[in-house]
Amino acid sequence: MSSPPVPALFTDLYELTMLQAYWAEGMTAPAVFDVFARKLPPGRNFLLACGLEQVLDCLEAFAVSGQDIDYLRSLGTFSGDFLERLRALRFTGDVHALAEGMPLFAHEPLLTVEAPMPEAQMVETAVLNLLHYPTLVASKGQRVVQAAGGRAVVDFGARRAHGVDAAVACARALYIAGYAGSSNVEAGRRYGIPVAGTVAHSYVQAHATEQEAFERFAAQFPGTTLLVDTYDTLDGVRRVIELRQRLGERFRVGAVRLDSGDLGALAKASRALLDAAGLGEVRIMASGGLDEHVIAALLADGAPIDGFGVGTAVDVVADRPYLDAAYKLVAYGGHDCGKLSPGKLSLPGRKQVFRRYENGLAAGDTIARHDENLPGEPLLECVMQGGRRLAAGRVGLAEARANAAAQVARLPAALRDLQPAAEPYPVAISDALQAAQARLIAAHPVGGC
Amino acid sequence: MSSPPVPALFTDLYELTMLQAYWAEGMTAPAVFDVFARKLPPGRNFLLACGLEQVLDCLEAFAVSGQDIDYLRSLGTFSGDFLERLRALRFTGDVHALAEGMPLFAHEPLLTVEAPMPEAQMVETAVLNLLHYPTLVASKGQRVVQAAGGRAVVDFGARRAHGVDAAVACARALYIAGYAGSSNVEAGRRYGIPVAGTVAHSYVQAHATEQEAFERFAAQFPGTTLLVDTYDTLDGVRRVIELRQRLGERFRVGAVRLDSGDLGALAKASRALLDAAGLGEVRIMASGGLDEHVIAALLADGAPIDGFGVGTAVDVVADRPYLDAAYKLVAYGGHDCGKLSPGKLSLPGRKQVFRRYENGLAAGDTIARHDENLPGEPLLECVMQGGRRLAAGRVGLAEARANAAAQVARLPAALRDLQPAAEPYPVAISDALQAAQARLIAAHPVGGC
Repeated sequence: MSSPPVPALFTDLYELTMLQAYWAEGMTAPAVFDVFARKLPPGRNFLLACGLEQVLDCLEAFAVSGQDIDYLRSLGTFSGDFLERLRALRFTGDVHALAEGMPLFAHEPLLTVEAPMPEAQMVETAVLNLLHYPTLVASKGQRVVQAAGGRAVVDFGARRAHGVDAAVACARALYIAGYAGSSNVEAGRRYGIPVAGTVAHSYVQAHATEQEAFERFAAQFPGTTLLVDTYDTLDGVRRVIELRQRLGERFRVGAVRLDSGDLGALAKASRALLDAAGLGEVRIMASGGLDEHVIAALLADGAPIDGFGVGTAVDVVADRPYLDAAYKLVAYGGHDCGKLSPGKLSLPGRKQVFRRYENGLAAGDTIARHDENLPGEPLLECVMQGGRRLAAGRVGLAEARANAAAQVARLPAALRDLQPAAEPYPVAISDALQAAQARLIAAHPVGGC
Repeated sequence: MSSPPVPALFTDLYELTMLQAYWAEGMTAPAVFDVFARKLPPGRNFLLACGLEQVLDCLEAFAVSGQDIDYLRSLGTFSGDFLERLRALRFTGDVHALAEGMPLFAHEPLLTVEAPMPEAQMVETAVLNLLHYPTLVASKGQRVVQAAGGRAVVDFGARRAHGVDAAVACARALYIAGYAGSSNVEAGRRYGIPVAGTVAHSYVQAHATEQEAFERFAAQFPGTTLLVDTYDTLDGVRRVIELRQRLGERFRVGAVRLDSGDLGALAKASRALLDAAGLGEVRIMASGGLDEHVIAALLADGAPIDGFGVGTAVDVVADRPYLDAAYKLVAYGGHDCGKLSPGKLSLPGRKQVFRRYENGLAAGDTIARHDENLPGEPLLECVMQGGRRLAAGRVGLAEARANAAAQVARLPAALRDLQPAAEPYPVAISDALQAAQARLIAAHPVGGC
């Protein structure tokens, strides 16, 4: 059920050169790094945390192999002492994180690593990579789920996601965000995500007639979904009706799928044909070029569509395929650190985020020092201690999905809208954290620890 | 040196349901599927073929395991007969493809699979996924290489690529496209790509002073590149100069890296400071928010930058993170097939592409029937026959990279420009292929085989 291992050398070379220097200098004091987004992507009201499971799998399993060491030695960059020490390196630190499915805002830590500097530095690239894409795509997928208003949405994007593990991670992230399932069988095998899919245009084309293709496929899979747009969508629907009228219960179809053309008009015309034929129980699925905006427009126009297959635009997050996410040093050796350049300000020290609720809805967050006790629910949980995963770091997929639904439902309605909220959600910095920042600036006007 | 195995169940569920139907119907005649892009992404003049190596690895190794079968059985969708047959399935077909690094245009097959229908259908999702992202990112990276005009470009995007294997595939694709290397150590280990990288802001911050950080790091790695913008870029450069003047040969620095701010102005000011101090040999590297357009603008403005680290915008292909790529049935059982709906037209039958050259530059392509012999160089090569890889399917990375450089250099200069060419490159359809299409339309006015 777990993810494929992340290679220990999946890291930027500079992590390794820094490690050699840190060890040579004896700089092994505890460091704290925050993962956060400097700003929300344009048009988004919040992000949805995702990817923690893979980060913890990676940290638990971190070990550099003998072959890795041989490769590094071949570069001629590293000392023999360093390579021996690297071979023994394991991750022994603590991790605090938002649960998967938790909404978050700019500057709020999604995850914090606290570990001896070399360990905390070494895992930067993998931690960022493993959180970035799942959080990015879950945040997008959640919008599609909102747009679909309770209708099933299935992930169809395996072929366009950026690689095999992106496709599988995507299916998982979208399931957490509220999708009903995925066409991606490997995602189903690995994570138990419901899988869906029936037939493509090629199957219809390879038969002498569309009628023959429909009849034979439905015989194999009674109650299936038939793709009706290979040649002409409404002719396809008429063939479904003819077959049903001719073959009766020997031709059972659960749904028709429209994959091209004016989906709204075709859905209305298909619904009318099916209903007139007494096939009111045959549902209409739509796919092809969908995203949250297209779905919202179709439904606003009254398109009688019962479910959506959504691929490329969401799986590659076409409108904004990256987050402005960073992994920033916020403390070293017990001292606060910060980079204080304008626009790249980071908040010093380990933190907690408190979310206040009013009338059951989130009313505002406060980013605070980790040891403060402010009103509201603390969002960051300890998920790994001394390199060992805690119960809070072992959350099943179903629970993460339920958590996402529950937490998103607790956001103000304006944030759940596809449009940018007129007023951004209030995120405050606690007095103590502001004071810490002021102290840091006083001590290091340009930044430092 | 090879890629991690692609799970056999990395496929869309509909491939498997179609397989069960094909086998039940005895539809195992040879099918031909083309992979092609329906159109070029906006603003691009051509694509660069990439990803073939991974496709062939995947096809060679294709085998469904007992565990996979157990999972599929648990779905309750498939017959026992089908699952037994699936367990024995291997890929025994032929593959024709463009060599990695070959420029291509809309509608030109990047790869053609010819195999018994169930095999050819089964591999659709993986083949598309494995070609799509490498071709997408190599096509973008090639533009960055053009913009950099011979200066070294290094891939810095491991943390933002959509997953671990995307990051590794990206480093490989960008190296083929002409990058000098990558920060991604796993890509270096796996493919022998040159790796680069020295130090991050966190290292500088963790030291009491920037000066101390510089001195200690250069002591560990003489001739290194120092990141000078942690606090103030020009102050950082001045510290490098002071240290050099104080410590002489004990402080050797090969380059400084600027990672924020107005890179052009800072590069000019840094160059002036270094030159005035007699440090003309210290190079200037730039990174942070770069893409082909930013690099072109910097260099057009005379920024004295010697090399670039480029990440997010290229690794996620931020301006257009997908290709309109399809895997289309073009023949079945010896008959041409096509989907003839407007805008989704596919050209029937197996094909060849001929590229004509005039004065050493490509002058036009013709998409033809595979058995035609037209003027020009045939671009599609047989890389796999009967499921066995041929010599043309075993091209080393260095050769693919050299091929890309040579083939791109053979394109008209207007195509190599970052701007859209005033006239698109001429791609014709051969008379015989047009005639085949006319015959298909006459026989199947709405499409079919």
